[in-house]
Amino acid sequence: MTFEFDRDTHVAPLEDGAWRAEISPGWNIGTIPNGGYLTAIMLSAVGRSLPHPDPLTVTSHYLGRVAPGQPATVEVDVLRTGRTLSTACARLLQDGRERIRMLAGYGDLEASKGPTLVTAAPPPMPPPEECVARETATMEFQNRVDIRLEPSVAGGAMGTPTGKAEVGGWIRFADGREPDIASLALFADAFPPTVLNLDRYGWVPTIELTIHFRARPAPGWLRGWFSSRFLVESHVEEDGELWDSEGNLVALSRQLARILLPES
Amino acid sequence: MTFEFDRDTHVAPLEDGAWRAEISPGWNIGTIPNGGYLTAIMLSAVGRSLPHPDPLTVTSHYLGRVAPGQPATVEVDVLRTGRTLSTACARLLQDGRERIRMLAGYGDLEASKGPTLVTAAPPPMPPPEECVARETATMEFQNRVDIRLEPSVAGGAMGTPTGKAEVGGWIRFADGREPDIASLALFADAFPPTVLNLDRYGWVPTIELTIHFRARPAPGWLRGWFSSRFLVESHVEEDGELWDSEGNLVALSRQLARILLPES
Repeated sequence: MTFEFDRDTHVAPLEDGAWRAEISPGWNIGTIPNGGYLTAIMLSAVGRSLPHPDPLTVTSHYLGRVAPGQPATVEVDVLRTGRTLSTACARLLQDGRERIRMLAGYGDLEASKGPTLVTAAPPPMPPPEECVARETATMEFQNRVDIRLEPSVAGGAMGTPTGKAEVGGWIRFADGREPDIASLALFADAFPPTVLNLDRYGWVPTIELTIHFRARPAPGWLRGWFSSRFLVESHVEEDGELWDSEGNLVALSRQLARILLPES
Repeated sequence: MTFEFDRDTHVAPLEDGAWRAEISPGWNIGTIPNGGYLTAIMLSAVGRSLPHPDPLTVTSHYLGRVAPGQPATVEVDVLRTGRTLSTACARLLQDGRERIRMLAGYGDLEASKGPTLVTAAPPPMPPPEECVARETATMEFQNRVDIRLEPSVAGGAMGTPTGKAEVGGWIRFADGREPDIASLALFADAFPPTVLNLDRYGWVPTIELTIHFRARPAPGWLRGWFSSRFLVESHVEEDGELWDSEGNLVALSRQLARILLPES
């Protein structure tokens, strides 16, 4: 069986480090492909271009809108291949115009050994069946990704903001695909914006998203938690954590976004 | 009067979007130029290549060692110039080999207007004269940057780790130059590594550093606070905040670093 995520992030080699992708409309938020999905497509090409198996740190700058249901080209430029770390630059283009620029550092998370000290714990939350499934008619995305919001932070996504810029819950693929390191790029950008818990903002586009991949996830539900402390003149950071079913942190994310008000 | 930071981050135009820089040895940590200093040099070239005045989000991947006391070339590739946001890619080269790759999004922090809600406060600390000046014979850097460590977290830098991966204190230029937005790139990477408060690790090279620039700083001392929650098999994130003398957050930083042990 081919899972939706694998089918929709597949890239085919062209020439000179370029790859052909199809941007599926199945991961749309409204009319726009989810940014984490697009990052995952690019990592699909980058991962096949570098000698190391795992992304360690990936930054995407979103330059222009990507059209769903259309092909795209991903160009990968290998910058460095060292013993424990390799680095690439990647560009996603549609109609010859660049839409996303990425920098990615890869390594081998299983081979890495050394000092370990973790002083944080996974966010406590009731089991998925006691959490809140988000249902909105405008999101293809929810047919692919099963999100259960922790009840105390679910309000904003339902139109009743809690007043605190925080959101989290359980997340997994709807078709039963288990999480792996590549899918963390999707899950790190899949929850509703934290600022929906402040006001009913319509659109909060991401300027830049950075993800640190810290461990390969165990099978099962992931837990995500996202918070914002500094909303200043429309600019806001969103800090995220993803934890696997064994209680290990698997990714840290931070994005800079800007709230676009109707008049702006 | 020309201040040291302005002199040492000056770039001269070459052709085709390239700039010539001199890597001063005055910002060395041991025998290696401070990564924040190198980022500041690159922003000096990027800032002169884009229409907007302020960096908003900047990511640097460190690919290879930069030699102090030598010239370097910074190549800037403008990716996008929009109404409120412009984006560039930059490369720092020495001897024709790329040493740092950067992505930078620029905007205008003073012109940005909109919703504002801050739920964090500057870290409390005693005044600079009651904090701890770091003195090590191997650092040119300390002649340029005046750092006063908050006493409860100063141990690691003195060889007596506190056991908690946290560090912070006051920071300013030694020659009296006031902070501005460009200098935040330096200050975001100027404190001793947080993990020095766990053990006497020798070298903790940065893989990737991302800085969000959130406001132009007021004159006077800045306060910095840096912490790490996830040291896993030698990889560690370092999360930083810089606050100005008026109590405003001016930058958020996060880097991914790796502890190199003597045997590795």
